[in-house]
Amino acid sequence: MAEFRKATASDLPAIIAMLADDALGLTREVISDPVDRRYVEAFEAIERDPNQWLAVAVDDEDAVIGCLQLSFIPGLSRLGLWRGQIESVRIASSQRGSGLGGEMIRWAIEQCRARGCGLVQLTSDKRREDALRFYEKLGFEATHEGFKLTF
Amino acid sequence: MAEFRKATASDLPAIIAMLADDALGLTREVISDPVDRRYVEAFEAIERDPNQWLAVAVDDEDAVIGCLQLSFIPGLSRLGLWRGQIESVRIASSQRGSGLGGEMIRWAIEQCRARGCGLVQLTSDKRREDALRFYEKLGFEATHEGFKLTF
Repeated sequence: MAEFRKATASDLPAIIAMLADDALGLTREVISDPVDRRYVEAFEAIERDPNQWLAVAVDDEDAVIGCLQLSFIPGLSRLGLWRGQIESVRIASSQRGSGLGGEMIRWAIEQCRARGCGLVQLTSDKRREDALRFYEKLGFEATHEGFKLTF
Repeated sequence: MAEFRKATASDLPAIIAMLADDALGLTREVISDPVDRRYVEAFEAIERDPNQWLAVAVDDEDAVIGCLQLSFIPGLSRLGLWRGQIESVRIASSQRGSGLGGEMIRWAIEQCRARGCGLVQLTSDKRREDALRFYEKLGFEATHEGFKLTF
């Protein structure tokens, strides 16, 4: 059984390796030892913000086998509803198909509920067809278009 | 010409009126005087978080004619890229078709750029066909599915 906990700086190499380990991530990330300082700075920015939570799934030996980022976003609409947002979901390639992804997302949803969020949202690249089916099976509805503008 | 500024507590009635003033918002919001305390609490939560910014567009007489919320989100992926997220975009019904929406979104994009974000993202309800065309015209690409799970 996996356990879920807040990530620490020492988890960074394992997390970055997972971010890079897919067709889309491969071209976007930089693997180095020590890790690129831009990742360290980003980790510190996440740590400083009480509404950001970087989480990892670990196995019995505390090896990182999954990760995601939760953002708790206050807002006015829907009577001041807080939103939980899930980003950067990754599962170690050795664990794919094991059910860990579903377990991790259900855990994330519970964290959002515990923080008082009334809605959980995420976007998923339309090219990741498996991921789209995965989120639908977990009860998410693709009611929105997810727009991006990259500089 | 509209001006854009950070919202203050005294803008809340005008913002909530705009949130309620469309087919989808009508059933979700509560208009009252004074405003429902849940909106006040949400406004205070936004104010406390330096990565959240509620903004209004105002006319020459400082009347609120538009609003949106910006979230600046740190993250590890894409070499520690910060994301700017735009939420709760509304234009007063008297101003629709005036070009104010485009002006406001371009202003929001500039704020994200100034904060060091490398990407701006938003989701838009698939039922709002005009809004989908509007964001495409502004250069956004609907590369992602926007999933929601409401409790």
